[in-house]
Amino acid sequence: MKFHTEYLVLHTKNRREYLNITHDVAGALKKSGVKEGMVLVAAMHITAGVYINDAENGLIADIDEWLETLAPQERKYRHHLTGEDNGDAHLKNLLIGHEVVIPITEGRLDFGPWQQVYYAEFDGRRDKRVIIKIMGE
Amino acid sequence: MKFHTEYLVLHTKNRREYLNITHDVAGALKKSGVKEGMVLVAAMHITAGVYINDAENGLIADIDEWLETLAPQERKYRHHLTGEDNGDAHLKNLLIGHEVVIPITEGRLDFGPWQQVYYAEFDGRRDKRVIIKIMGE
Amino acid sequence: MKFHTEYLVLHTKNRREYLNITHDVAGALKKSGVKEGMVLVAAMHITAGVYINDAENGLIADIDEWLETLAPQERKYRHHLTGEDNGDAHLKNLLIGHEVVIPITEGRLDFGPWQQVYYAEFDGRRDKRVIIKIMGE
Repeated sequence: MKFHTEYLVLHTKNRREYLNITHDVAGALKKSGVKEGMVLVAAMHITAGVYINDAENGLIADIDEWLETLAPQERKYRHHLTGEDNGDAHLKNLLIGHEVVIPITEGRLDFGPWQQVYYAEFDGRRDKRVIIKIMGE
Repeated sequence: MKFHTEYLVLHTKNRREYLNITHDVAGALKKSGVKEGMVLVAAMHITAGVYINDAENGLIADIDEWLETLAPQERKYRHHLTGEDNGDAHLKNLLIGHEVVIPITEGRLDFGPWQQVYYAEFDGRRDKRVIIKIMGE
Repeated sequence: MKFHTEYLVLHTKNRREYLNITHDVAGALKKSGVKEGMVLVAAMHITAGVYINDAENGLIADIDEWLETLAPQERKYRHHLTGEDNGDAHLKNLLIGHEVVIPITEGRLDFGPWQQVYYAEFDGRRDKRVIIKIMGE
């Protein structure tokens, strides 16, 4: 049984940003030498998520607008009584999802044609981490 | 350590459809011979999801209506500038979730009384795939 | 390869409640003796979820209000024709997510600074179960 762990440090310029990290996940898989198993890719913060979808800029703008409609930044959240201003980022995280698990077959991410792994930052402009944990043989 | 991989090919008649695939997942588990471990069931497309919920037709109609309220098909998405017409399907996928991980205990899916695995198609009428990856002993 | 399985029984006083179960998950991990691997924490019901977020009471009230806005209890759901009154609980479950997978590194839950595991009850006041399945070495 093999295990391989990597931590990505991401620092976005904007409060909200969507970063394609497929290449990083595939790189970690290659280093691990695992041929069969699973990869867990998880945000280590509660104001950022990880999801699988398309690398298409129009869609990414649609996703951002949609998340802002369902969990607006400007709403008065009780969470802001603590001094924070990121209540929306917590809700966006719950909506988009916190982690993904990806199958590994014959040494590669066993994805369909358009699947890409994205890091969704909802409260950026500082260092944040993502863990890649690979488990298999 | 045992690994077992199967691919389901699903082809719905309608654009949106919800298919109970619990029997397929349980069948794959039986073939694998795994007694303890985890099953990953994941859509291989970005306009379809996998979720766990009830096999009740009224609820399934509720889910469909609810998803359509939160991510309507008829909205003008930027993604449609690429020639696609399925922006809503991407957002519905993000909402419902892309994959599930199910515990295996004593050779069976360790589910509570009403849990069933569903494939949620949001842009059907063509062949689409789901991967079942089993890992355990 | 080691496997460890525990079932938590939760019984809330209110219809909706959010319980921090991080301590239970960490306790199960300690008992398992696993140093590297993954923990799956999953609701065994379809009207309750598991998510990772902050242990801050204002935020928890925000989450509850937000879920009630997006999937209101009082709406007339088709599911209620079966005699049930918990259509909203099924939809809230789909939104918040049904399970989480947590990385294990050096014998501990490999979490960032604020990550906590929560059980989200949407139709409580009776015994309900959560499974903790640990897999690793």
